Amino acid sequence: MAECGGKSERELILRIMEILGGVENDDCASLDLGDRYLVVSTDMLHRESDFPDIMNPWQMGWMSVAVNLSDVAAMGAEPAGVLVAAGLSAEADLYFIDELFSGFSDCASYYGTRILGGDLDSHQELTITGCSLGFVEKDLILRRRGARPGDLLCTTGTLGGAGGGLWAWKEGYSDSELITRLLEPEPRMAEGRALAKSGAVTAMMDNSDGLALSLSDLAGVNRAGFLVREETIPLAAGLVEMVGREKAVEMALSAGGDFELIFTVDPEKLARAEAACDLTVIGEVVQEGIWMEAQGMRNQILPRGFEHRIGGCR
Amino acid sequence: MAECGGKSERELILRIMEILGGVENDDCASLDLGDRYLVVSTDMLHRESDFPDIMNPWQMGWMSVAVNLSDVAAMGAEPAGVLVAAGLSAEADLYFIDELFSGFSDCASYYGTRILGGDLDSHQELTITGCSLGFVEKDLILRRRGARPGDLLCTTGTLGGAGGGLWAWKEGYSDSELITRLLEPEPRMAEGRALAKSGAVTAMMDNSDGLALSLSDLAGVNRAGFLVREETIPLAAGLVEMVGREKAVEMALSAGGDFELIFTVDPEKLARAEAACDLTVIGEVVQEGIWMEAQGMRNQILPRGFEHRIGGCR
Repeated sequence: MAECGGKSERELILRIMEILGGVENDDCASLDLGDRYLVVSTDMLHRESDFPDIMNPWQMGWMSVAVNLSDVAAMGAEPAGVLVAAGLSAEADLYFIDELFSGFSDCASYYGTRILGGDLDSHQELTITGCSLGFVEKDLILRRRGARPGDLLCTTGTLGGAGGGLWAWKEGYSDSELITRLLEPEPRMAEGRALAKSGAVTAMMDNSDGLALSLSDLAGVNRAGFLVREETIPLAAGLVEMVGREKAVEMALSAGGDFELIFTVDPEKLARAEAACDLTVIGEVVQEGIWMEAQGMRNQILPRGFEHRIGGCR
Repeated sequence: MAECGGKSERELILRIMEILGGVENDDCASLDLGDRYLVVSTDMLHRESDFPDIMNPWQMGWMSVAVNLSDVAAMGAEPAGVLVAAGLSAEADLYFIDELFSGFSDCASYYGTRILGGDLDSHQELTITGCSLGFVEKDLILRRRGARPGDLLCTTGTLGGAGGGLWAWKEGYSDSELITRLLEPEPRMAEGRALAKSGAVTAMMDNSDGLALSLSDLAGVNRAGFLVREETIPLAAGLVEMVGREKAVEMALSAGGDFELIFTVDPEKLARAEAACDLTVIGEVVQEGIWMEAQGMRNQILPRGFEHRIGGCR
């Protein structure tokens, strides 16, 4: 686990939130506009730690916008625009720049929004920071806080796909569809919005760092726990065949990059959530602890997943 | 001048604006909220290119927020919040992190706003990307476009101070007040807002990269030119005594970091602008060309100033 002065990335975030004061630990910050909320989020991506070597510049652009939009989706908001600050490295010739910015633009357009502006800079290592904006009605906004014991734990789509894509690429399975999932993530914009409108969801976040860390974050904010039923986890198509069931579940838990929505649903309103989008119930909210149940056994899920090494870490 | 494929930073920005389509070349992007505009800007800063070696981590935090707020000031907007994405390098121990984030928070508070959220990441070189938000009434928003020949060219405060501070530090004048100006820039938030309310300003931007580049940008957007009267340029206190008049004027023109507002005023409304804030008339808008008049001579001002080396630059 990443550490700095004995603190993990997530512990550092809590420390920083104390310095800053009044910052909510949601996927986006929200600003009261009177009639609705503006939600806004920023994510920084680097060549080495965030973009697999095989990524082309268009895909780097796509991913940079996609991960930022995913935070807007997690709040149940409608996207309103994206800004991109790009620190370009020496590899960035005109072709690279054209492709990168086309990737930004294409991803924003695909989700019905656009690039509003940005900053251009140079850097040893390619660095892209996106900032995404969205709007959401006051009574529809979804936050990480709100889950209650007894609520159903759900996910959109399938899990482990991005982790499987990374594995496939490293093992030389260049034709795996999971590689595309890794390189061209599709944030759940329509699903996030529909779930917000369903009125059935009590808490939500995206699982950019894997299910285990998402559950750890949700548990902390809600002072609650989770029980996941292993056999209900919707594993990405082809994943079990490729790596076996045990490794597939491990990828769902701890590999980053899936960008699904993890959310909790009032059990009496499950039908409404199911009408909003395809989802899978994978467990429930419990009083405490984060547990995986498989073949009658219950084991603790440790908060392991994709965390950045922060600063002077030993 | 920075180049990539034969293109300068500013030429690259124009190329990228074409790829993105519909992006205004203002200090902030603006989003129509119905009753008002949301303005939003992003700026990326790096350890080596943006933070002088003598800067302490609190000052790095202060500056990162200050440069982002300056863009909000340039639109005549009221600040509404700032996001910060920090890519921390190995030098960032807990003390560094506490000071950096205190600098973020103190600068935001000083200008009546706050840090809304952000992202934490790690990086070889310290990299901070801010994203600032503001609100401005629809009839008050100030843009780079709007200057007409005959309008007066004005600046807030004094020029050349940050350049002088850099010089003083390099030459070993460690007690110069200009060094503080370099390290702890003060964006003109109140002035920008008051100028917007005055109704006298026709175009505005901040001069983060020096006066010469600001005039070049304003000339391009307005398809107009500028005539600057050298003896009217308000040079930072102590600058001429330290480096001589010629070098002081050169610093005003081409050194980055002053974060004053450069704007044009309808000459019939000058009194209103003067009532809004301290300003100096340094010239006027002309049909074409960017000129400096000194002792009866008129010379062209070349667009030289602080530009980043972008990407694969030769």
